[in-house]
Amino acid sequence: MKTLIIVSHPEIDNSQTQQFLYEGSKQKNVVWHHVEELDNIDIINEQKLLIQADRIIFQFPLYWYSAPSGLKAWEDTVLTRNFIYGDRTYPLEDKEFGLVITTGLPLKDFKKGAAENFSLDELMTPYRAIADKAKMKILPIFPVPQFWYKTELMQMDLLMDYQRYLTQKMPDSLKNKQTWFEKKLQQFDLDANIDDKKSIELILDNFTARIEELDQLNDTLEMIKENDES
Amino acid sequence: MKTLIIVSHPEIDNSQTQQFLYEGSKQKNVVWHHVEELDNIDIINEQKLLIQADRIIFQFPLYWYSAPSGLKAWEDTVLTRNFIYGDRTYPLEDKEFGLVITTGLPLKDFKKGAAENFSLDELMTPYRAIADKAKMKILPIFPVPQFWYKTELMQMDLLMDYQRYLTQKMPDSLKNKQTWFEKKLQQFDLDANIDDKKSIELILDNFTARIEELDQLNDTLEMIKENDES
Repeated sequence: MKTLIIVSHPEIDNSQTQQFLYEGSKQKNVVWHHVEELDNIDIINEQKLLIQADRIIFQFPLYWYSAPSGLKAWEDTVLTRNFIYGDRTYPLEDKEFGLVITTGLPLKDFKKGAAENFSLDELMTPYRAIADKAKMKILPIFPVPQFWYKTELMQMDLLMDYQRYLTQKMPDSLKNKQTWFEKKLQQFDLDANIDDKKSIELILDNFTARIEELDQLNDTLEMIKENDES
Repeated sequence: MKTLIIVSHPEIDNSQTQQFLYEGSKQKNVVWHHVEELDNIDIINEQKLLIQADRIIFQFPLYWYSAPSGLKAWEDTVLTRNFIYGDRTYPLEDKEFGLVITTGLPLKDFKKGAAENFSLDELMTPYRAIADKAKMKILPIFPVPQFWYKTELMQMDLLMDYQRYLTQKMPDSLKNKQTWFEKKLQQFDLDANIDDKKSIELILDNFTARIEELDQLNDTLEMIKENDES
């Protein structure tokens, strides 16, 4: 699976959050594509990038409840009517569409009656409308609120979740999570030097054993749920 | 009352709809301000324009369910945090905020389950969020769908409604409509040459008489409503 991240930030070098996410994006089959760096927008090339991807992510800080103007300029240029739906073909059909939104405010502010009075879902309606028009599959928003207020441990947790958002099979079920982590550990094992191999293999064995336990727990939970419903 | 129309359209000279609306905007105390024509955005000057206005309108064609990128660039530059809410002063407080949106699709497409699946109100959430943040009063959207499919008579009707949206006291009640039309006719009378004066005065007399009739009808309607409710 190939993932394309369309990143928009007018001062990306000054954004430590974006730099951190950039490090997390360094995975196989993930392309980081920063629109403000493009000297001029080559429509054919940009459309090719979109067609090659299976998952397309728009990533940006919230500027006036929307993306920075750089992303809108990119949209207005690249997303021609014919490319999205014009001649009743849909080049982006069935691809997944996600949004990674960094905000300076806590998530609890984005609710009816709270400080911002609108949810991120409501504010992102125009993007969902584009994805709908292109017949794409919409993923839940991945919010990154107040990154720099987080402890290092919380940041590492977030980075792992971000990496899963980029490459894990969706929906975000227990089974899909397990498969993703297993592959990740196997990859670490392949990349490791001989000294590290032993400890990684120990972790992997341990992890596989835990997964079997989790599977059993999961089955039990499902049975309880079914009994509750009947 | 002063009205500022912030217009965004990257090819405004080719837009007959915008040219038509431009003609309609030529009224006393109405400023037409086209952002794509600005060579560079002078923040102080733009903020001054906003402060001088009592009613601020954003006017644009719907590009990917939002304004063209030119308006977003203007927003990201002019609407500094401090200007909108930063130091807990609100320079735009209690001003009215409106949206004039031209679309190539009919209004009936902008509904859940219809072709576009989202209403204009839902799509415009980010603008409403800005107005909320600035403590402005939000006016209902003024949509201009498929302008060039309309007959000349329908276009003239729309132009009159547009002029009222720009300068009439809100809410759009019968009384406020009457007052607006009366003033408009008086203005025609002042501007007319002597030959026309007589016929205009006749219309005005007739109009005033009708208004009294309408007022009585209105009172009767209110009474019926009150009886219904009790």
